[in-house]
Amino acid sequence: MNDILMDHGSGGQLTSDLIDELIVPTFKNQHLTELKDGAILPDPQNKLVFSTDSFVVDPWKFPGGDIGKLAVCGTINDLCMAGGIPKYLSCSLIVEEGFHIDDLKTILHSMQQTAKNADVSIVTGDTKVIERQKGNQIYINTAGIGILQRQTSYQYQENDVIVLSGAMGCHGASIFMAREDIHLQGELLSDCACLKEKAMKAMAYDSLRILRDPTRGGVATTCIELIEKSDFGMELYEALLPVDPNVQTLCDLLGFDPLYLACEGRMLCIMNENDAKQLCEQLKDGAKIIGKITKEHPQKLYLKTKIGATRQLHKLSGQPLPRIC
Amino acid sequence: MNDILMDHGSGGQLTSDLIDELIVPTFKNQHLTELKDGAILPDPQNKLVFSTDSFVVDPWKFPGGDIGKLAVCGTINDLCMAGGIPKYLSCSLIVEEGFHIDDLKTILHSMQQTAKNADVSIVTGDTKVIERQKGNQIYINTAGIGILQRQTSYQYQENDVIVLSGAMGCHGASIFMAREDIHLQGELLSDCACLKEKAMKAMAYDSLRILRDPTRGGVATTCIELIEKSDFGMELYEALLPVDPNVQTLCDLLGFDPLYLACEGRMLCIMNENDAKQLCEQLKDGAKIIGKITKEHPQKLYLKTKIGATRQLHKLSGQPLPRIC
Repeated sequence: MNDILMDHGSGGQLTSDLIDELIVPTFKNQHLTELKDGAILPDPQNKLVFSTDSFVVDPWKFPGGDIGKLAVCGTINDLCMAGGIPKYLSCSLIVEEGFHIDDLKTILHSMQQTAKNADVSIVTGDTKVIERQKGNQIYINTAGIGILQRQTSYQYQENDVIVLSGAMGCHGASIFMAREDIHLQGELLSDCACLKEKAMKAMAYDSLRILRDPTRGGVATTCIELIEKSDFGMELYEALLPVDPNVQTLCDLLGFDPLYLACEGRMLCIMNENDAKQLCEQLKDGAKIIGKITKEHPQKLYLKTKIGATRQLHKLSGQPLPRIC
Repeated sequence: MNDILMDHGSGGQLTSDLIDELIVPTFKNQHLTELKDGAILPDPQNKLVFSTDSFVVDPWKFPGGDIGKLAVCGTINDLCMAGGIPKYLSCSLIVEEGFHIDDLKTILHSMQQTAKNADVSIVTGDTKVIERQKGNQIYINTAGIGILQRQTSYQYQENDVIVLSGAMGCHGASIFMAREDIHLQGELLSDCACLKEKAMKAMAYDSLRILRDPTRGGVATTCIELIEKSDFGMELYEALLPVDPNVQTLCDLLGFDPLYLACEGRMLCIMNENDAKQLCEQLKDGAKIIGKITKEHPQKLYLKTKIGATRQLHKLSGQPLPRIC
């Protein structure tokens, strides 16, 4: 058994083999092993957070990660950003006929390792196979359940600040370089990572208003989403924005703006300034205050540029980099 | 806005428009409207059932349903078959560039209608766009949370019987006919339906051992799965198996076996004979006892044929009908 066949999706003997020989041994846990149509989970005795994401990243392997790591981190991060502590994940695979079984193994192990590191179990799943197109496509959906730890909302206060947990755009840039086979002198890795520990540190602050990870659309689009339903505006300071030098080189070469490149392991949080300073020290990895909440220009995002000008930022329009997650 | 563009998956302005104008209004409910990275759900105070399924059915529209109805029924049914009462669903779309927005609307409304009829809310979601291939592909993942109502297991007793809630293989046959543009004289519709009410009726019987819906692989494959982890064998009686006459005609023409054709709205349950007779009367729609549990030939499924012979049935091997769900 080297490549995925249409029969691996038939629901018959080959589907059983794939599940029994590859999927269950990789994700082994008490909830998964009964293999009913659903996993039965203990009573959390708390409010639940429920999230889902499908991953279609192309190529499936990139510097700093692969679609498996991304699919587990992505849903764990969404649960954390909604104020939850992630507990359980589902894993649903759509695999193209001809996909190499060894590559599928790599991806499943990467999912399991990432889940284990975050103390999360993959407890239920599904596998479908679609006809051969290019022979190297795989799509993964993960849905997740977490226990609500901290209710967050768009209730900001004037002079709250925005913390960004690390450099912008490394994920988007690394996917682009993997896809176009571009090589720069330095090493550029995706920031793909699990935000559970960082989010738990942020949730410990009373003044925390909201958490969000700037994925598709990047920091600029996410910041607009954070204010467009509030009564406040936001200012970002170009001089304070953390950009990896390799990402900056790539952006200079190609005319990209790092503010619109996706991150997959960065956290934005809004809180009061004193708490934010303390949090940045705890988070390390270049966490910085990058802007503030203002009563001026409600629902608008302004960038104060290095040369002292002010520019309004809009949501990403046009698609410089499709399928980055 | 008539067709899906790559930009609808960018995470930028067009993604927002799609969510705000199409998806949220269709699925409108209190949990969905905050549009955070995850939905926050009230404490169920009970054990949870968690399930997921991705749907890749081709064509997306077929006599008796479409991929939207199928995606909602499929996960609702999985939750019910695991002994749960379904409460919340997620909806994650992977749409091909060029897919018509009107078709997407049809699918979303079909999802919402099906969810509403089952008293289930779609509370969180995600949208991705992949490059144009044939221009008419859509994949939908639904994950679901239910409250555990009835713990089931493979603990059968000798002479327990198997109930099937209606005719076999209508879904598989209708997909085949839609795909190959075959027309028979009678009307053949998919059995695609929500099993919540039927499952709740079955769960009311103390002697219920287990519930399962015979989807991919059909009744034969599902029956083997039901015994292969137990100490018992199973016998099915060909003379008692309910087959729709149109499905039988198609099978006769093409050499298919209705025992291996998928159902998407049928339920198999194992319980004692007296309860089973009563349940069949309650379920109507042609629900029938089709076989029994035996201590002979453990883990093997035998078919007693109409002419009195005995034939061992195996799991589906080979794929007569790919992508039926």
